[in-house]
Order: sequence, then structure tokens, then C-alpha cells
Amino acid sequence: MAKKPNKLKIIPLGGLGEVGKNITIFEYKDDIVIVDCGMSFPEDEMLGIDVVIPDITYLFKNKEKIRGIVLTHGHEDHIGGLPYVLKKLNVPIYGTKLTLGLVENKLKEHKLNNVKLNEVRAGDIIKLGCFKIEFIKTSHSIPDSVALAIDTPVGMVVHTGDFKIDYTPINGNLIDLHKFAEIGKKGVLALLADSTNVERPGYTMSEKTVGDTFNDIFLKAPQRIIVATFASNVHRIQQVIDAAEMFNRKVVLSGRSMINTTNVAKELGYLRVQESTIIDINDMDRYSSNQIVILTTGSQGEPMSALTRMAFSEHRKIELVPGDLVVISASPIPGNEKTVSGIINRLMEIGTKVIYESLADVHVSGHACQEELKLIHTLLNPKYFIPVHGEYRHLKRHEELAIELGMPKENIFLAKNGSVIEFTKNSANMGQSVQAGNILVDGLGVGDVGNIVLRDRKHLSEDGLIVVVVTISKQDGKVIAGPDIISRGFVYVRESEDLMEEARKVVRDVLTECEKRHITDWATLKSSMRNALRSFIYEKIKRNPMILPIIMEV
Amino acid sequence: MAKKPNKLKIIPLGGLGEVGKNITIFEYKDDIVIVDCGMSFPEDEMLGIDVVIPDITYLFKNKEKIRGIVLTHGHEDHIGGLPYVLKKLNVPIYGTKLTLGLVENKLKEHKLNNVKLNEVRAGDIIKLGCFKIEFIKTSHSIPDSVALAIDTPVGMVVHTGDFKIDYTPINGNLIDLHKFAEIGKKGVLALLADSTNVERPGYTMSEKTVGDTFNDIFLKAPQRIIVATFASNVHRIQQVIDAAEMFNRKVVLSGRSMINTTNVAKELGYLRVQESTIIDINDMDRYSSNQIVILTTGSQGEPMSALTRMAFSEHRKIELVPGDLVVISASPIPGNEKTVSGIINRLMEIGTKVIYESLADVHVSGHACQEELKLIHTLLNPKYFIPVHGEYRHLKRHEELAIELGMPKENIFLAKNGSVIEFTKNSANMGQSVQAGNILVDGLGVGDVGNIVLRDRKHLSEDGLIVVVVTISKQDGKVIAGPDIISRGFVYVRESEDLMEEARKVVRDVLTECEKRHITDWATLKSSMRNALRSFIYEKIKRNPMILPIIMEV
Repeated sequence: MAKKPNKLKIIPLGGLGEVGKNITIFEYKDDIVIVDCGMSFPEDEMLGIDVVIPDITYLFKNKEKIRGIVLTHGHEDHIGGLPYVLKKLNVPIYGTKLTLGLVENKLKEHKLNNVKLNEVRAGDIIKLGCFKIEFIKTSHSIPDSVALAIDTPVGMVVHTGDFKIDYTPINGNLIDLHKFAEIGKKGVLALLADSTNVERPGYTMSEKTVGDTFNDIFLKAPQRIIVATFASNVHRIQQVIDAAEMFNRKVVLSGRSMINTTNVAKELGYLRVQESTIIDINDMDRYSSNQIVILTTGSQGEPMSALTRMAFSEHRKIELVPGDLVVISASPIPGNEKTVSGIINRLMEIGTKVIYESLADVHVSGHACQEELKLIHTLLNPKYFIPVHGEYRHLKRHEELAIELGMPKENIFLAKNGSVIEFTKNSANMGQSVQAGNILVDGLGVGDVGNIVLRDRKHLSEDGLIVVVVTISKQDGKVIAGPDIISRGFVYVRESEDLMEEARKVVRDVLTECEKRHITDWATLKSSMRNALRSFIYEKIKRNPMILPIIMEV
Repeated sequence: MAKKPNKLKIIPLGGLGEVGKNITIFEYKDDIVIVDCGMSFPEDEMLGIDVVIPDITYLFKNKEKIRGIVLTHGHEDHIGGLPYVLKKLNVPIYGTKLTLGLVENKLKEHKLNNVKLNEVRAGDIIKLGCFKIEFIKTSHSIPDSVALAIDTPVGMVVHTGDFKIDYTPINGNLIDLHKFAEIGKKGVLALLADSTNVERPGYTMSEKTVGDTFNDIFLKAPQRIIVATFASNVHRIQQVIDAAEMFNRKVVLSGRSMINTTNVAKELGYLRVQESTIIDINDMDRYSSNQIVILTTGSQGEPMSALTRMAFSEHRKIELVPGDLVVISASPIPGNEKTVSGIINRLMEIGTKVIYESLADVHVSGHACQEELKLIHTLLNPKYFIPVHGEYRHLKRHEELAIELGMPKENIFLAKNGSVIEFTKNSANMGQSVQAGNILVDGLGVGDVGNIVLRDRKHLSEDGLIVVVVTISKQDGKVIAGPDIISRGFVYVRESEDLMEEARKVVRDVLTECEKRHITDWATLKSSMRNALRSFIYEKIKRNPMILPIIMEV
């Protein structure tokens, strides 16, 4: 019998069929390399959940194989899962300087001091087990982003990470298209590429265009300027600082993550800023309003963010006044449209002028549109293709784009989280899937909130709750106190006294009936109370509160 | 002392600072006319709420003055509040044929049989108290829409209703621009105009352009076509029917409101359709897949809608298969983006092709963009202006547009719901506001869910609930049963037994302590239990469940 050939397995554990939580496994014989380890924000139905991290059961089972985690850049959807995973797996991390700076900050917050962080530069090649990994400079909405060329025993695999092509990057660091061309020429077995913007035709504009708009805005603004953007968008922050210095304004930082990231970026040399440009928020009063720019978090209308507090006049140090100019330098992430719109309304009611994306070019995306993707596909000319980073609609559209470029449909793998795509030197196929999914983090609890708890939260959120308590006698099973009825999230109690009194009577009648029929087992008593109350309430006001019968015995 | 002149009061009770729930009051001496009476859908934070209607306390207080409700068109945000209001105020309704047809349907559902419905046609003038009201034909995404020219004792006031300008309407009914010009020439005291699309430059495309796209799509589709759109968009439905007839397809209706509206529109002569075109859903199997179009609700991804059920393979009669083509002929209403995207993903996973707005011109708006608004402002040339129908950002932008056209800022009123704008023949000013706001409808309850209930629902939804019960003795106040602890929406109970056992111990200790210190009043006992448990839980897992202590006495 012929020996089965060893195969390279590529296993996306997150980031497919979703936006966020990116993590991909590369496995060959006894070696595993993990690319990125992100988190995502909870979906609407994940009530009360703080963050979502990938299910890494598969990695636990194979932990002796893991050679390291390689990071493409420092966004939360690529590094946010690290603290949770590193509490259970102690493996070395590899990434560029700014990426590791942000990781270090994060690990400190989680009191993780034992993690080995290994700095690399674009152009470096590292060896992890049987894999040789080269870091390739790319453009993205955070500096120091890289793609990975992973030289495996069966061939070269390229993972783009998140990227776009910016011919005029504001830090002068061009995406290394020559390297992509060179690798493509040598031959690429498989490509994994960012699908976020694949539905958009054309090109993503250069970050530089935002700077031009800023200059126009700064030139004309008569009072304070407030710029809200992602704290991680160091290029954007640089452009605000540049405009501030050009127009003699001081920069005030607002929002914890804005202060943290700016400090890390400045320390590590990713921000060019004069000593006196950034001032303390408490020194703001020493300048006139046309000498101030406030750089703030909250571009997504996050409830506790600095911009939201300003808009609702709840910020302790900054009070917006008519004539101030707020620039929202970001697009609402899908799902945040209404919240952002609410903030814009509030800001306008205060009398501030608000500039946002649909009014001026104050934001560009960090992801490649169709023409950019075509360039990368063409330069690399891979044999196989796995679209990554996107909802199903994006992955599907990316498949179509590859087909338009001439790739056979059977060479493209529309995978799911947990899919295993197996490669030999000249073949690829979908193998048996492994466990993958969402682990929900709520407070300190990781994974202790699941479907039952969420279903209960949803039920409680829509209809509230009624608790019915009775005390019965141990001796004869007779009711000796209650039934008492307490409700929360159901009706205004004061205006519904009659309803609650009737409800109590309904339960009393059920209990009398049970007593008559000598029913004493608690399960039957409870379900009788629950059913009677449910029917009564639904008939009366067409609502379905959760009903919680409790029996005490004395 | 000079006699104070009588004033016309215009009071928007809904539709300002929000999208939906439109209702405006016109009052002069002893006469009140109400324009529209809409509902809106609940905001995200209104957990469990079905619909929102305007607070009409002011109308109750002045009910003997009310001469009638005049409707501009049949959309829910203009007629949806009627059933609730008409249960309390029995006043005559005036509207065009299709509008009344839809109202009648709605009143039947609410078992309201006593309402006087008075049909009018565009061009008619009716007299209600001191007001003479002329109905002016407009274009909108539902047929039979009208603007109102309200001749008041102090001058002419025009309310545009919702409108756009469509030079090639599919039913041939052009907006009556001549009438707007004529009225403008005579002189207009005040204009109230639709602000929904005021942020968009240029013109809204004609509904006809969608028909052209439909023809292209129908020409090429190899299998079934499923078109999802708003049930009220009779023009759109007409165009689907036209395309179906041109390409020899039968039309199947799916979704309760789609069936209802189509029936009403057909009966009243608003749909041109051959006898054999629309078939019963049960006869669908008698045709091949390229002979079928399914017209369905669910273009907003509503959870229980027909399209959602199809996408999740839960529709009892329709099973989508690869090769079917789904056309989502609508834009997501702000807030629905993610839900609609989720449906698109599901449909694509099934293997259906999905066409939506960003891929093809399968939808146009029903509201006027900037250039159309400029035309109406210019034709009417009003002295005063109240922007209506929109969030604050829209009203503000509409103010700017009027200023660009030469209107003095002081002649524009950026009003709120409840504002009173008072007019004489040659003056206008903001008066004392009246009560206005949201009344929440949950099941059969109207207004019995308010802030406290919503706050509790939110708390329950995020952190769940812990109930603590103890039974104490009447004689000596000693604990004789419990404490028992029950939780819902908090943690997986099975995996958190230790935590719950510890929690019970915490409460037991508190009760022992209270007993020692002879504390017997229930309020203190309850708050002691609550506080101890809250601190314990927060310290353990950083969560804040609602804690409900219950004391039984025997």
C-alpha cells in the first residue's frame, strides 16, 4: 500500500462568514503556525456580551505542535483574542514593532507578563518548524502592516492580511509590490486574500486625500476643531497633527485608547510631532478656541466614548459650544449607522457644525477594492485561492472576481470557520472540519454564557419577568403563605394593580385545584402555576413575560 | 387695551427630530385640523415594544375643536397611529381613495367600525371649520399621494406631505406643478416640507428606471425570480407585474401585507393586471421555474417576514434552490443594514443569486432630493418655512437649503415635536410648547410600558437576574427556609454550581448577621441581601445581574 503523502492543512478558525475575529492555522505534520488571533464585537442578539473570541479547542488538542503566533498588524480583529488565548497557551508571538507595542499594552492590562514577543521587520524571514515565513510590507489603516509569504513543504502560500494599495502613503512606506511580483514569478500554491471591500469597484483612495481635506477644513474653521477617528489609525492622527502644526493649533487628546495608542506610536517613532504640539487637556484654557484641535475617540458613536459624552454634555473637561466644528473622520461600521446619526443630531442641536463622510472626503477605507485585488491576484498568480476576511457575500464575490481573472472555480475554496483545506504539491481538497465557533466573554466569564442564557436574556428583554412564590407545608403540602407575585420589566406596577391582583387570584385558584386533586409534586405544581398565569396574561394584554414559579417548604 | 389678534397655531406632534410618527395640528380659534396620524417603529433601546405612537394629550384637551383628520397618503408613518387615536377620538377622516382603502383595512383589524371616512380627489377643496383645504397631486412611492394647500384666516399654508418629483410616473399621474406655481403666485404664508432626502444632492430617479432594470433582469433569469419590496409600493408592484406579463411569468404573492395591499390596490383600480397573471401559491407547482415570479415582503430583513423565512428554509410553501434569483428592491432603512446583510448572506449560501441596490438600479427613493426641494421652494416662494419629516440633521440641512435660496434665517422655524408656531397675517413666532412625545405600544398595552420598565428590561437583557427567597417566622423573625437562589440569563447554572453555592452562603451570612443585630424590618433585610450579593458577584465575575430579594412570612 502506498504511503499517504503528508499534507499542508490550512484551517481558518475565525474571520470567515463574519467581519472580525481573524485567525488562521497552518499545519504540516508536527508543526502549527497561527496567523493572527482576533476578537469581534458581539452581534445584536448576543445580549450583554462584551467581546467574542474564537473557539480554539483544536489548538488545545494540538498544543505541542504550535510553533508560534504570527501577526499581520495591530487591529483588534487581529490581536484582540491574544490575552484570552495566551492565558491558556503560552506560545511565542511574532510581529512588527508597532503591532507588538499595541500587543504589549494589551497584555499589561490583562496582567500577562510571561509572553515572549519577537520583533520582526518587513523583509525578514523567520523559521517556525517546517515553515519559513517572510514579512512583506503592505498599506493599511494602521502602520507596520504586513502580508505573509509562508514557504511550506508543499509550496508557497501567501496571506495578504488586511491591505490596500496606497501609491502615496503618508509615511512614505510603500507596499512592496516588487516582492509580490517576485514571489508570483517563482510560483504560488495558494493565496488567502482580504475580501472586505471586494464589492466595491475601482480603487480605494489614498490616505493622503484625507490630509488635503483636513487642510481645507483647518484653513477655514473659526473656532475649535474636534476630529473623531479610530485610535489605531496612526496615519490619520499624523495628518491631524500635520494640519494642526501647519495652522498653529495645539492638539488635545481625548479618550483612553486615543491617548494610549498615540503614546505607543510616538514612543516607537511612528508619529512625527513637535514637542509642544500635544498639550494636556487641562491646559486647553490657556489657548483661544482657534488654536485648538481635539483628537477624540467615539467615531462609531460608542455609548461611553469621549465624543458621545461631549455630544450629551457629559464630558468633564470639554464643553462644546456653537461654532465648534466636529469632523467625524470614519465611516459607520455596519450596525452603527443609527448610533452615529444620533450623535450627529445631538452635535447639531448644540450648534456645532458637523462634517462627516457624505459631506466631504474626511475618510478613506483601509481595504482593497476590486482593481487592487485584481492587481495582487495577477502579480501572485496563485494556483489555489481561499477568500478570507468577510461575510459570505464578500467571500462569494471574491470567488467571482478570481473566476473573472481566469481561475478555475474548482481551485477556489469557499471555506467556513473550522474548514480544513488540505494541500499537496499539486492538489487541494476540502477535508474533515474541526471545531470552531464563538466564545462569548461577559465580564470575567469566558464561555459561561451560551445559547440558553442568551435566549433567557432575549426573553427577559422583550417581555420582562413575573416571579410567583408560595410557601407550602412540609407536613400536608398545603399552602401556608403566598402566592406572592413580583414583576420586573413587565408593566408599570402602580398602573396595573388590578391586573396583578387578578393574576394572584388565578394562581390561588390553580393551587386550590391542585390541593383538591391531591397534586403535591413540585414539578406539576410549578407548571400548573406557570401555564395558568401565562394564558391569563396573554389573553389580557398579549404579552409573554418569563414566568418563574418558586416553591418554599417549611 | 388693544385686542390681541387671533393667531394660527401650527403644532407638529410627531415627525420632527425623528423619521416616522408624522402628525401636525393646525389650530385657529375654535377649529383644529389634524394632518396625518402616523406610527413609528421602536428604537433599539425600546426593548420589546411593538410600535410607537404620538402622545396626543393636547388633542384630548381640545377635542371639541377637532374638525377632522386629513391624510396625505397611506404609509404607516402617516396612518399607522389612527387605530389607537380613533379609539379615543371619534373624528372624521379625509383622504384619497387608495389611502382610505388602506385605512379601512387597518381599522377592520382593530375592529373599529364607526369611523367616518370621506373620500377626496386631487383638486378637491374641502372646508373644515375655518380652514379650506385643497388636495394637490404629488409623486411618491405609493399612489394617490397629495400635498395640502390649507387656506387659513391668516394666509395660505402648504404642507407637501412626503413627495418627490417624477416626470415619468408609471401611472401617468404627474405631480401638479402648475397648481404649486399658481398657489405660489397668489402668495404663501408658510411652507412645511419633507426633509427626508435633503442631504442628497441632485434629483431622485424616476420610478420608471426600476422598470427598465426589471426588464433586463427578467430577460436573463433562467429560473424563478423572487422580488422583495415594500408592500405599499404599488408602483413597484405594477412594474413587477408588467415585467411578468411581458416575459410570460405568473406572479405569486407572499407575505400577509403584500397580499392585503395588492388586493386593495387591485380592487380600487390602482393595479393594471390581467386576470390570469396572479396565481395562488398552491398552484405554483403547475408551472416551470422560469414561469414564476414571487413578489414578497421582507425587503428589510424583518425577522418573521416571508423572505426571511425563505432564507432560513422555514417557509412552508416556498423552498429556494440554487439558480433562483432574489431581487431586493429596496434600501435598508437606517438600522436595518445588518439584518438585510444577514439575509443576503443566507440567500447566497443557499446558492441563489442575489441582486440588491448596490449592484443594480433595483430601487429608487420616494423622497425629493435637493434640486427637487429647490423647485418646490421656488414655485411656492413662502414667507415662512418649517422643515418637517426628518431627524435634526435633516431639518437643519433643509434650513440651510432655504437660506441658500434667499430666505432670511429668522423666517425659518427649526421646531421640535410639541413646538407651537404662531402666525398672524404678517408675523410668526415660536410660542409656548405643548405636551408631545412617544407612547409605547406593547401587545395590547398602550402606554403602560415606560422608562422604568424599559430600564429593567435593559438591565435584564445585559446581565440577567438572580432571585433570592427566604421564608421567615412571623413570631421571632428567624429564617425558617432558604435562602434559595434562582437565576435566569446570568450564567450556565450547571457549570456555575460552585458560584451559586458560594452566593447562597454569602446571603446566609448576611441573614445571620442581621439576626444577631436584631434587624427585622424587611427593607433593611432586602437591601442587605442585595448589596452583599451584588458585591460578591461583581468581584467574582465582573457582572451586575438584577437582584430580586423576596421575603415570605409564615
